[in-house]
Amino acid sequence: MEETDKLNAFFNPRSAAIIGATKKVDKAGNVIFKNFAYNKTRGVFKGEIYPVNPNAESILGFKCYPSITEIPGELDLIVIVVPAKVVPTIMEDAVAKKVKTAIIITSGFREIGKIELEQQIVATAKKAGIRILGPNCLGVYYQKTGVDTLFLPETKVLTTGDEVIATPRPLVGDIAIVTQSGAFGVAALDFLAGRQIGISKFVSFGNKSDVTESEMMHYLLYDNETKVILLYVEDIKYGRKFLRIAKEVTLKKPIIALKAGRSVAGARAAASHTGAIAGSDKIYDAAFEQTGVIRAADMEEFFDMGKALAMQPPALGNNIGILTDAGGPGIMAVDECESGGLSVNRFSEETLRKFQKLKDEGVLPKFAATSNPVDLTGSVTDDMFEVAADLMFQDPAVHGIVLLGLHHLPALREKYIDSVAQVSSKYSKPIVMCDIGETEMALYTRFRFDKLGIPSFPSPEDAARAMKALVNYGAYLKKNNCAEEYISEFLKKKRGS
Amino acid sequence: MEETDKLNAFFNPRSAAIIGATKKVDKAGNVIFKNFAYNKTRGVFKGEIYPVNPNAESILGFKCYPSITEIPGELDLIVIVVPAKVVPTIMEDAVAKKVKTAIIITSGFREIGKIELEQQIVATAKKAGIRILGPNCLGVYYQKTGVDTLFLPETKVLTTGDEVIATPRPLVGDIAIVTQSGAFGVAALDFLAGRQIGISKFVSFGNKSDVTESEMMHYLLYDNETKVILLYVEDIKYGRKFLRIAKEVTLKKPIIALKAGRSVAGARAAASHTGAIAGSDKIYDAAFEQTGVIRAADMEEFFDMGKALAMQPPALGNNIGILTDAGGPGIMAVDECESGGLSVNRFSEETLRKFQKLKDEGVLPKFAATSNPVDLTGSVTDDMFEVAADLMFQDPAVHGIVLLGLHHLPALREKYIDSVAQVSSKYSKPIVMCDIGETEMALYTRFRFDKLGIPSFPSPEDAARAMKALVNYGAYLKKNNCAEEYISEFLKKKRGS
Repeated sequence: MEETDKLNAFFNPRSAAIIGATKKVDKAGNVIFKNFAYNKTRGVFKGEIYPVNPNAESILGFKCYPSITEIPGELDLIVIVVPAKVVPTIMEDAVAKKVKTAIIITSGFREIGKIELEQQIVATAKKAGIRILGPNCLGVYYQKTGVDTLFLPETKVLTTGDEVIATPRPLVGDIAIVTQSGAFGVAALDFLAGRQIGISKFVSFGNKSDVTESEMMHYLLYDNETKVILLYVEDIKYGRKFLRIAKEVTLKKPIIALKAGRSVAGARAAASHTGAIAGSDKIYDAAFEQTGVIRAADMEEFFDMGKALAMQPPALGNNIGILTDAGGPGIMAVDECESGGLSVNRFSEETLRKFQKLKDEGVLPKFAATSNPVDLTGSVTDDMFEVAADLMFQDPAVHGIVLLGLHHLPALREKYIDSVAQVSSKYSKPIVMCDIGETEMALYTRFRFDKLGIPSFPSPEDAARAMKALVNYGAYLKKNNCAEEYISEFLKKKRGS
Repeated sequence: MEETDKLNAFFNPRSAAIIGATKKVDKAGNVIFKNFAYNKTRGVFKGEIYPVNPNAESILGFKCYPSITEIPGELDLIVIVVPAKVVPTIMEDAVAKKVKTAIIITSGFREIGKIELEQQIVATAKKAGIRILGPNCLGVYYQKTGVDTLFLPETKVLTTGDEVIATPRPLVGDIAIVTQSGAFGVAALDFLAGRQIGISKFVSFGNKSDVTESEMMHYLLYDNETKVILLYVEDIKYGRKFLRIAKEVTLKKPIIALKAGRSVAGARAAASHTGAIAGSDKIYDAAFEQTGVIRAADMEEFFDMGKALAMQPPALGNNIGILTDAGGPGIMAVDECESGGLSVNRFSEETLRKFQKLKDEGVLPKFAATSNPVDLTGSVTDDMFEVAADLMFQDPAVHGIVLLGLHHLPALREKYIDSVAQVSSKYSKPIVMCDIGETEMALYTRFRFDKLGIPSFPSPEDAARAMKALVNYGAYLKKNNCAEEYISEFLKKKRGS
C-alpha cells in the first residue's frame, strides 16, 4: 500500500507550494493560491502553504519564495502553474527538494505534440519517486482538507458589474469524480452543486503522464468517504492494469464510466484534446462489461446512475414495480424499463388480491389499475402512495420500485414523501422516483426525496434508466457472489448515517 | 373549412357554461369555473360565462343556472365536470340548446370499459353537430382568450400552510401541445413554464370519443400562432386519416410525436389508461417516417426537439460544425451527432486556411483545434466565439452549428451571447447551444440564448439531438421540394417578430 500512501499526499498534504502564484487577479496562479490561502486562514487546510514566485515578496499576506528549494521543511505537494518550458527546471528543483507529489496544471505538452517534453518531466520525477497528476489538468478538489487546485473562481463578474456564481463547489457527499477532461469536470461540479448532489473527491488528470485512472480508482477503493466512482475518460492507459483494478474495485464500489470519443470524428477530436488514442469503441464496451463497469450513454445518464447507486442498494433481480399517479408518465417508465432489458411483469395473484381488497375497502380508488403498473389516478392522496408502495415491496417477485409522484394532482400534498421514505427503509430493495416539472413544487418534491435518500429524477425515462443501473450492478454482484455482502454493508452505512 | 370553424369554438367561445361549477374549494368544478371567472373579470375572457349547478344561486358572484336550457342566448362551449352517469342527460340538454362544442372532463367511460355509455353520448351530440373533446381529459388552455379548463390550480397549499406553485401556466409562445394524457399534459406545462418556453395552445383530448388528434392537427395547421406541434399519443385513431392529415401538416409545420406504449407492458398499461389499443410499435415508426412526423425517443427529446424547431430553421444538409471552448463536451457532441446519423466532417481547405490565418494573427489561440470541432480552449474570450461562428457559417459545407459555450472559463463573459446571436441572424442555417451547469451563470447563459432565439440545452447530447431534429425535418422538406419556401417563411416571421 506504499503507492496508495503516496497518492494520499494529493489529498492530504501537510504542506503545499503553488509555483506560479501571483497577485494578478483571475490568473490561474492567483485563483489557486487564493483557494489555499482562504482555506488555510479559515482552518480548513491545516498544513503549511507557500506561494512561489521570484517576483513577489508576499502574496495575500503569505511570504513568497523565489524557488521551492528555498522553502524550509518538507513539501508534500507542489502545484505547478508556470509555462510548459519552465516545468523541467521546476521538476529538477522538486527532485532536489524531495517533494512527494506534483499537480501540473500547465498545458502545452502531449496534447499539442510535445511528447518528449512531457516524457522528460516524468523521467525526472521518477528519479525521486515523485508522483505527477497531469499535465494539462485541473488537479484536485477535496473539501475536507481544503485542497482546491481549480483555477476557475466560484464567482465571475459580468460586464454589467454583477457578480454571479460561475463554478460552484458541490456539497460534501459520497460520489468521487475522476475525469480526463477538466472542462467536463468543472461542468460536472456545476451540475452537481445545482442539483445538491454531494461529492467525496474530485480529480482531473488530463494527459495522465504518470498517475492514471486505474491507480486513482484503486486509491478510491480504500477511501471510506467514496461510495461510487464516476469516471470520464477519452482513452484508457495500460488496458490490462485497468481490467485488473476495475474488477477489484467493482466488487466493492460501483464505477460508472462515460467514455467519449465513441465515433470516428469523436476519436479524432479526442486525440487533439488530451492526446488520447481511443481505439475501437467495441473494445471499451467489452472491457467495461467484463469488469462490471457500468457505461453511461450520455452525460445525464452518467450523473443519474451515479446518484442512484450512491443512494440506493442494487436490485437482486430485474422485475420492476411501477407505482404512479399519472397514467401517461407511468407508461413512459414502463416503456423505458422494457427497452432497457428490465421486466414489468403482472403481479402475482396474491398481490393482485391484496390490491383488490384495498380497493374494495375504499383505501385505494375503485378504478385504480393495480396489475403493474399501479395507477392511483387523479384521486391520489398522500396515504395511498404509502400503502401501495408497502404492498409492492412485500411482493418477493418485485425487485425494485419506480415511483412516479406527479405533484399536480389536487389532493396530493408533500406528506407522502416522508412516509414513502419511511416504508422503503424497512426493505432492502431499491426505489427511485420521478416528478416532472421545473417550478416550485416539483423542485421541492425532488429535493425532499433526495434528502431522504430516495433519488429523484425529472423524467420517467431518467428514473427508469437509473433503476437499470441498480439492476445491472446487482446482477454483476450476484454473478460474483458478493451481492448480499455488498447490500448489507450498504444498508448498514445508509442507516447509520 | 366548416369543421375548423366548429373546432374554433373550443378556443374562441363567445359564451361558456361550466356544468358542475361549485363553491367547494379545490373541486374540479370550482377550479375550472374560477379560471373562467378570473379571466372574465380581468378582461381576458371577453364572452359570457355561466356556472351551472341546481344547488346554488350564484358562484363567485356569477348568477348560477340549474340547467343549460335556462341560460339566455347562444352557447358556444359547455365544460362538463359532473359524474359520468349524468352526462347523457346533460348532452340531451346540449342538443336542445344547440351548443357548438363540449369539453367532457369527467372520467369513467371507455377507459374503464364503459364503452356504450361513451358511444351513447357521442351519438346524441352528433344529432346536433356538437363536437366533443374528451371525455376523461383536461380540455383546453389558451391564454389569449382565457379559456382554461384545467382543474389543477396554479398553486397548492402544503400541510405546513405554505402556498407553492404547483401547476403553472406557461408564457405565450408558438408551440402547441396536443396530448392524450392529461397528467403528462400538465407535467409538460410545468416543465415548459420553468424553462420559460412559451406555448400557443394546449389541448388534452383523453378518450377522443369525437375530436381526434388528426382533426386537432388540421386545425392547428391553419392557426397562425402555432409554429410547431408537440403530440403525445398512446394510440392513433383512424390511421388513414392521420396519414393524410399529418402529411399535409408537416409540409408547413413540424410535428414531434411522443408515442407511449412502445413496449408490451407499456401497451397493456395504455389500454387501461385511455382505452388505447396501441398495436405494433413498428407500424407507428413507419407511419411517422412516411408522413414526416419526427418521433422523440423520450420526454426530454420531445421538448428539446420542439424548442429547436420553434426557434431555428431546419438544416439543408447533415454536416454539422461543432464550436466549443471545452474539449470533452465537444467530443460528446460529436459522438452524439455521429451516432444520430449526422456528419462532423473536417472543414474544407479554404476554411482551414482561414482559421489558420486567425491563429497566426493572434485572433484565436495558437493551439486551438480548428479542423471541426473547433476548440477555442481555456483561453477563450467573447470575441473568439463571434469570429469562429461567423467563419463556420460561411462554409457552404457546414449545414448547422452546435455551439458549446461553457461559461466556466475565466476570460469568457456574457457578451458573446448577443454577438453570436447577431452573427447567426445573418445566415439561414440553424444553430443550437449547450452550457452545462445548474447554478446562476449557467441558467443565465441558457435563458439569454433562448431569449435571442438560439435554443439552449443543458447537455452536449441534448443539443446534438435537437440539431438532429432540424436536420431530419430539413431532409423531409427537401424531399418534398418545399424546404426553401418553409425556411424563407420561417425567417420572415422570426425576423419580423
